[in-house]
Amino acid sequence: MALLARARELEAAGRSIIHMEIGEPDFVTPQPVIDAGISALQSGYTHYTPAVGLQALRQRIAEFYLQRYGVEVEPQRVVITPGASAALQLVMAVLVNPGAQVLLADPGYPCNRNFVHLLGGLPVGIPVSAASAYQPETQQLREYWTEAVAALLVASPSNPTGTLLGEGMLREYHAIAAAHGSSLIVDEIYHGLVYDRQATTALAVSEDIFVVNSFSKYFGMTGWRLGWLVAPPGYVADIDKLAQNLFLAAPTMAQHAALRAFDEDNIRILETRRREFQQRRDYLLPALRDIGFDIAVIPDGAFYLYAGCRRFTDDSYRFTSRLLEEAGVAITPGTDFGNNRPESHVRFAYTTSLENLQEGVRRLRAFLS
Amino acid sequence: MALLARARELEAAGRSIIHMEIGEPDFVTPQPVIDAGISALQSGYTHYTPAVGLQALRQRIAEFYLQRYGVEVEPQRVVITPGASAALQLVMAVLVNPGAQVLLADPGYPCNRNFVHLLGGLPVGIPVSAASAYQPETQQLREYWTEAVAALLVASPSNPTGTLLGEGMLREYHAIAAAHGSSLIVDEIYHGLVYDRQATTALAVSEDIFVVNSFSKYFGMTGWRLGWLVAPPGYVADIDKLAQNLFLAAPTMAQHAALRAFDEDNIRILETRRREFQQRRDYLLPALRDIGFDIAVIPDGAFYLYAGCRRFTDDSYRFTSRLLEEAGVAITPGTDFGNNRPESHVRFAYTTSLENLQEGVRRLRAFLS
Repeated sequence: MALLARARELEAAGRSIIHMEIGEPDFVTPQPVIDAGISALQSGYTHYTPAVGLQALRQRIAEFYLQRYGVEVEPQRVVITPGASAALQLVMAVLVNPGAQVLLADPGYPCNRNFVHLLGGLPVGIPVSAASAYQPETQQLREYWTEAVAALLVASPSNPTGTLLGEGMLREYHAIAAAHGSSLIVDEIYHGLVYDRQATTALAVSEDIFVVNSFSKYFGMTGWRLGWLVAPPGYVADIDKLAQNLFLAAPTMAQHAALRAFDEDNIRILETRRREFQQRRDYLLPALRDIGFDIAVIPDGAFYLYAGCRRFTDDSYRFTSRLLEEAGVAITPGTDFGNNRPESHVRFAYTTSLENLQEGVRRLRAFLS
Repeated sequence: MALLARARELEAAGRSIIHMEIGEPDFVTPQPVIDAGISALQSGYTHYTPAVGLQALRQRIAEFYLQRYGVEVEPQRVVITPGASAALQLVMAVLVNPGAQVLLADPGYPCNRNFVHLLGGLPVGIPVSAASAYQPETQQLREYWTEAVAALLVASPSNPTGTLLGEGMLREYHAIAAAHGSSLIVDEIYHGLVYDRQATTALAVSEDIFVVNSFSKYFGMTGWRLGWLVAPPGYVADIDKLAQNLFLAAPTMAQHAALRAFDEDNIRILETRRREFQQRRDYLLPALRDIGFDIAVIPDGAFYLYAGCRRFTDDSYRFTSRLLEEAGVAITPGTDFGNNRPESHVRFAYTTSLENLQEGVRRLRAFLS
């Protein structure tokens, strides 16, 4: 974020910057959803909804799981939240007591650690590597799992590495968590943005898993602040109460607009965008390898490439700062994602046009060769 | 909330219910703001804003403090949040470490206690009474203030009692907090909805006070989920980081729409509504007294009447349940607001039309006489 602020400063001073640090789609929300938002406002839908969200939207999301994944989900288990951040916070708040541990992949999304900290819990990073597609190995889980562990949080596709978890691994994670009487949380906020194979939702494995999802990434609705959570049946009443306390309800017009997000015409637009993300990945990955970045695993999804930069530096923070100041290219240092060799990794986001990516690659090549 | 759900059930079964339990204005958001929201969507403003909000909105709020209160506020101290709930959560998160105490008026807004609990802190209720207009007395603060107290949170106007804090009391509170090296937080989310005298903002007292406000109540924008926080200068950087972690940003279209909220034509609509709330209060208060409810203090603002019901019951929860089931009138039991004689108090909200209030009073009179 400091990097983004500095990039904006440089731009304000007239410099050209290629942005490959931004974690949101560059596309505007598709027109059908925008139109539905306008229509909701014209209809005067400006009051609170129930804390768990509009019943119609909870049902629509449940239907989506059936349509897309063939998984039956009770609409009452779906809780609408103001962004996936609020969903993650709700899950943590029902599971984490002071002193409890939460296991997380390192590298991983940095805010998750902070949710745990805020509740007086202890986030425990499990160092993951390319050998296990940057997901925890069951052997590691057995080593790290103590009596104090309240939950394991994994992401599929993961941020920053973009790798998916298959049904087999999800089953293993769930079995280990269940055996310890603790919980599995699966962050699926990049579901939909998957390129080479179909993603499995953890909801196919068990109803005893917390799944977090969002309208931000695949549905292209970041600024609307809308996500959801599917909770095990026994937790819904507590989550409802917590939601009333923490945020009252998700934005009303966003919820009405999101009802349109699952319609066929909107999905067609999203699928076109998904293919464009795939083209960008398929361009950027070999180009970066060719320059000398080490990308050990082809990411299945999301819009990130997690790359080793050992050939150029052993201080990724300083490296990204120099790239910004001297080459006009903004990328994110590994230090944002944990403590597992962050100094030799960087993250590229392909949330900008192919033309911009090509210009970024040109600048990187010129600067690094 | 359970009561509201039951009221909806009864209505679904064909019963007529007069709602005097709802904590949001019955008015739809004024048209100028709705139009600005539509225009923001038409312009494609669907991406994230900075975590602390649109700079233009921070400036507009700072100007509003100068216009309405004659108080200068640095725009950089204004943090835009997804509702006042998020603002309260941010303040608590920067001030409360595990074990820390937060002093609160009892009765008071129930979610505040839960924000403190979630952080591992201890909310300490100070029993307040009509004698001090339901605000803590300085003598009480001296008794309750220990080394463990991180902050005092007061509300002006308060929920459920609607009473204001004058500049003198705010100065005393601030002096006591400052003398103990701890903080004063003032919830001003009902500012604007004040009927008999001008409200003082705590920002007039010192820049070293946290002030929470909202677009929900006076501005009539509940469903948009938008509030703000004015923080002491030294806390803004930490709050920015926390906001990035907790919620990323407030809804973008709501922020653009809110830029219109301070314009003269919109304020005129809001002032008409304010006068209508005042009419409702001025009708309901004597009518309830006449039935036998004990309203010891005329509330200065908000849209609540906090009433003693000892003449009818010593179990306010059961009383409100019977009123709902047998008289078709929904009000809130004192038990929602704390532990200070809640069994002999109820809260009436005048967030429904004068006609509905009259019908409610008729039903109450018939049932209770």
